[in-house]
Amino acid sequence: MNHKKKVHSRVNPIDIEKVSSIDELIDQFDQSGVFGPGRIAKAVNIYSSMIEEGATVFLGVAGALVPGGMRKVLTDMIRNDMVHVIVSTGANVTHDIIEAFGGQHIKQVSYHSDAELREKSIDRIYDAFVEDDSFMKLEDHIQPIYKEIWEKHKDSTNTLAISTSDLLKFIGEKIEDPNSFVRAAYEKNIPIFVPALSDSVLGLQLWLFSQMNRTLIDAMGDLGKIQSLAGDADKTGAFFLGGGVPKNYIFQSKLMSPKSFDYAIQITMDRVETGGLSGASLEESISWGKTSSKSKMVTVVADITIVLPLIYAGVLARIKQVD
Amino acid sequence: MNHKKKVHSRVNPIDIEKVSSIDELIDQFDQSGVFGPGRIAKAVNIYSSMIEEGATVFLGVAGALVPGGMRKVLTDMIRNDMVHVIVSTGANVTHDIIEAFGGQHIKQVSYHSDAELREKSIDRIYDAFVEDDSFMKLEDHIQPIYKEIWEKHKDSTNTLAISTSDLLKFIGEKIEDPNSFVRAAYEKNIPIFVPALSDSVLGLQLWLFSQMNRTLIDAMGDLGKIQSLAGDADKTGAFFLGGGVPKNYIFQSKLMSPKSFDYAIQITMDRVETGGLSGASLEESISWGKTSSKSKMVTVVADITIVLPLIYAGVLARIKQVD
Amino acid sequence: MNHKKKVHSRVNPIDIEKVSSIDELIDQFDQSGVFGPGRIAKAVNIYSSMIEEGATVFLGVAGALVPGGMRKVLTDMIRNDMVHVIVSTGANVTHDIIEAFGGQHIKQVSYHSDAELREKSIDRIYDAFVEDDSFMKLEDHIQPIYKEIWEKHKDSTNTLAISTSDLLKFIGEKIEDPNSFVRAAYEKNIPIFVPALSDSVLGLQLWLFSQMNRTLIDAMGDLGKIQSLAGDADKTGAFFLGGGVPKNYIFQSKLMSPKSFDYAIQITMDRVETGGLSGASLEESISWGKTSSKSKMVTVVADITIVLPLIYAGVLARIKQVD
Amino acid sequence: MNHKKKVHSRVNPIDIEKVSSIDELIDQFDQSGVFGPGRIAKAVNIYSSMIEEGATVFLGVAGALVPGGMRKVLTDMIRNDMVHVIVSTGANVTHDIIEAFGGQHIKQVSYHSDAELREKSIDRIYDAFVEDDSFMKLEDHIQPIYKEIWEKHKDSTNTLAISTSDLLKFIGEKIEDPNSFVRAAYEKNIPIFVPALSDSVLGLQLWLFSQMNRTLIDAMGDLGKIQSLAGDADKTGAFFLGGGVPKNYIFQSKLMSPKSFDYAIQITMDRVETGGLSGASLEESISWGKTSSKSKMVTVVADITIVLPLIYAGVLARIKQVD
Repeated sequence: MNHKKKVHSRVNPIDIEKVSSIDELIDQFDQSGVFGPGRIAKAVNIYSSMIEEGATVFLGVAGALVPGGMRKVLTDMIRNDMVHVIVSTGANVTHDIIEAFGGQHIKQVSYHSDAELREKSIDRIYDAFVEDDSFMKLEDHIQPIYKEIWEKHKDSTNTLAISTSDLLKFIGEKIEDPNSFVRAAYEKNIPIFVPALSDSVLGLQLWLFSQMNRTLIDAMGDLGKIQSLAGDADKTGAFFLGGGVPKNYIFQSKLMSPKSFDYAIQITMDRVETGGLSGASLEESISWGKTSSKSKMVTVVADITIVLPLIYAGVLARIKQVD
Repeated sequence: MNHKKKVHSRVNPIDIEKVSSIDELIDQFDQSGVFGPGRIAKAVNIYSSMIEEGATVFLGVAGALVPGGMRKVLTDMIRNDMVHVIVSTGANVTHDIIEAFGGQHIKQVSYHSDAELREKSIDRIYDAFVEDDSFMKLEDHIQPIYKEIWEKHKDSTNTLAISTSDLLKFIGEKIEDPNSFVRAAYEKNIPIFVPALSDSVLGLQLWLFSQMNRTLIDAMGDLGKIQSLAGDADKTGAFFLGGGVPKNYIFQSKLMSPKSFDYAIQITMDRVETGGLSGASLEESISWGKTSSKSKMVTVVADITIVLPLIYAGVLARIKQVD
Repeated sequence: MNHKKKVHSRVNPIDIEKVSSIDELIDQFDQSGVFGPGRIAKAVNIYSSMIEEGATVFLGVAGALVPGGMRKVLTDMIRNDMVHVIVSTGANVTHDIIEAFGGQHIKQVSYHSDAELREKSIDRIYDAFVEDDSFMKLEDHIQPIYKEIWEKHKDSTNTLAISTSDLLKFIGEKIEDPNSFVRAAYEKNIPIFVPALSDSVLGLQLWLFSQMNRTLIDAMGDLGKIQSLAGDADKTGAFFLGGGVPKNYIFQSKLMSPKSFDYAIQITMDRVETGGLSGASLEESISWGKTSSKSKMVTVVADITIVLPLIYAGVLARIKQVD
Repeated sequence: MNHKKKVHSRVNPIDIEKVSSIDELIDQFDQSGVFGPGRIAKAVNIYSSMIEEGATVFLGVAGALVPGGMRKVLTDMIRNDMVHVIVSTGANVTHDIIEAFGGQHIKQVSYHSDAELREKSIDRIYDAFVEDDSFMKLEDHIQPIYKEIWEKHKDSTNTLAISTSDLLKFIGEKIEDPNSFVRAAYEKNIPIFVPALSDSVLGLQLWLFSQMNRTLIDAMGDLGKIQSLAGDADKTGAFFLGGGVPKNYIFQSKLMSPKSFDYAIQITMDRVETGGLSGASLEESISWGKTSSKSKMVTVVADITIVLPLIYAGVLARIKQVD
């Protein structure tokens, strides 16, 4: 009315005719500005700010991202300096390393029942699949690597006590596949923490190995390291692909610190109403001091495998424009 | 291995560097082929087949699509001959017509409580908003249109008995806004069925009008018309944006017919486990004869406002390639 | 601690040993007071208040409630004066009437594919089923009823113009099955509005009938009636079983009124983030004036068929205590 | 028709009048037999079979169960011999131990923003809360216990290498609160595995302690132990409260074994379509050999805090009937 300045603006309908790149799609999402598209655009804006302002970016990696086709996006994010610390489920590093050692994830498998798949030695991950043979490739390659690490780093009592971030670094060093995110992280000197390493096939392989070679996990070493990374950085941002251990482990790195994350983005389909941390709102983290009321935050409710490529492409375009 | 033909293939990680258009993104989704991206690509493939094979496409429009920025995509789909029959909730046509008559949906409204919004006469739709003033614009424009339709089509007893598809056609004729999907449908001679018209502000406006001018809904006329459209076409496809009445009404158009839909695509976040039709699997529709085991079908579990632009852009690119 | 008054209290762990009735389970839920149990207890408290304070209760009935075993609970709610106005999807009244006329919903059907079900003339609703034979029973019984209603209420031009609430009342009068909620509503003089009647098999049967006997829907008559019911009552409460048309139709009954619902309860699994009304928060309705900041409200995120029996039993126990 | 035996049966509407106990409610759910109630009844039936047939029951504990009021149900399940192996998130044991040491979870906290909660040193878990003071109580009590364990079990190099199951056993021994499930597990000699112990406040406290007292996690010891438990038992069942690490860790205990779980029940709200293990169907586990086509399995899609008490009460009633 009259001279009162209106701060709100119109929801501009998304116009595909104006779009010839993903970057322009994000612009359309931004001008629409509501619902899912608005949140994706906001995620791109926040992520771009994180990078422009030199924040240390903590990436949480949960869910079946490698079987879901996200391996190269993760690797590219690392190579383009969009990630500085990784916390992963055991499964995601296992799946990455399986592919690095010649195994693969497959699709379009015809089957009548999961029992039939078992007979054919094919393991199912929703509509992706992995053959037992790929796990054998993992075993063939990882056991000698474990041996080499053990020989090199065991102590005087013939015991290897190793943090998961060191273990993944040493494995990354041995991987030749340039599309591996474990390799890319090694090259970029980015730590990968796997707090529940034993909860994966990589962990089971380590257990097999440990039957003859005593191996202990220096979980406290990991904890000290990530808290330093979270506490020493001037600015920090969290990007959560799913919830689970990676989300909690990244967030708790600020619990014993006066600082909090300056930025937080999460992509999840989990619900807030069950009270579990995986689906918890980012606002809730303010009450814990993990973030603050000044933090820039957004939650995108979507399948990660659909929107991560969009967000990555959007941020990449903005970074390159700045260069 | 040896000579055994493998029908399955690798999950190709999505490679954003190879993507400079949405069309190429869909290609990447297709080569990945699993989870959400695989289903989006499949939706594009099925939709493209529908159009190439000349199927009559029935579009179900539910959810807050116009406030969510989908208005122009819907209009463009109509103008590009990708839709031939529409079944809509009352809200979606109401929202389209509000914008056609000068109202708007807005965003970035600062507020502390919904009570504060009420005081400011602003109505909230998640993070989109509409001012009461926009509803007044609707009233100012729609009442004379109702009057004109009534005068022209009333019977000898001074009663207007009108089907919702006729009513929407007459309204579309009066709309000048080229971005209105109700207008575009009128221009393309595409019927818009609104089975629950009375369940909307457009319906409430008709009730206001009917206090002085007797008006009845010829719901049976609509039913006969959509069954003819579903029964007469050689090939038919269904594209469900959300569930609700539009999904059921489109599907039931085949219940009294020996034919079934040859194609079906749905985008929804509703769950299958509650048993409600909105979240029901498309496979279930085979048991009812609404589709058959030969039908090409896919469900995309996602926010419609995120993936509809992707699917539309993907199909559009393929159609133009063919031209 | 000391003299400081603490308004908050402890989350008391749920103690099953103290529970020998559903009423006591609700008490345990109430003393726990958080997450799902807390919300169920709050729903029981609010519903009990509605009844104790003489509010007119509007019940929205969506989803596959009758196939899901909720038929008798709905009927008992009516017979125990816990409901005064009903708005239903076409499917729920269709399913109720099918059972009233000798049809049934079945379970534990073994099948390998939905195509096999089609061959056996069995229609699937998630893991419930209905045989085509049951629909034939519906046809056999409903056609003569339609004829009788038509003959009795047609006008001088041999046209029946009927509101859905009148139609359901006349059908209820003809039903003998005491477990039918359509019958119970008739006996209690409770109107059942079915705004999308044509979107159901009951509607398709009416279409069949209308081929020889002109029939129009007086949707405006329904709108006037429900607005009077919503506007005339001193206090009003809304209880939404699912979303869809029933939720919106009940809520919009206050749009043209200065009053709003004093109580609102919804049970849904739909998500808030898509922006659709089905999953919309009840708080949002304050901005529309459908409720107010003084209204007592709660959303239970759950499968209706699990928690409706709990809520009903809890409220019933409280009402009986009062008697 | 005629002599053909029909194996399917009627969906019996749930009749609350026939219900005077939770046991009878489960009977009603069983006779309804579809949707959520049918699955809850099936879960009770399967769980009862597990126990009657002497299966070793592996319980996965994820989500905010203790803040959500489930602490006593978990403890009672242990004390009633319904659980034999536990795999927990770090949070659930942390929350249990907080309450054991005098801390508490609270509700009905009035607040305007999460920032206000932070100022008041109150941490939010959806609509439950915990004061910083409760965490201080944990610190006060756990540090001396860590010291005692360390002194008693450290090796000759002044290093404590301990499995999480041993650590939790030693902590359980020190707890006096009979309502603690960590205590109950100790008394019943039931191991609690916490594969991601470092991902919790209990883990952060151990890190604090380890700054002066070298402490390593024998994660391989845990892995060997759970695989023995899974491999040695004649029959095994899995009961998953939520997904995350506990679900995967229990399931993978069969990966290197020719045996599979004979029973599996999961309660979750996570979706299957994202491909993540948390929401994965139990059928999928057959392809991995974690279960087999002969396993009895059911998934309940619900808030754990609502349905776990129902399932527990139902199973308890059946066990007592047998006694």
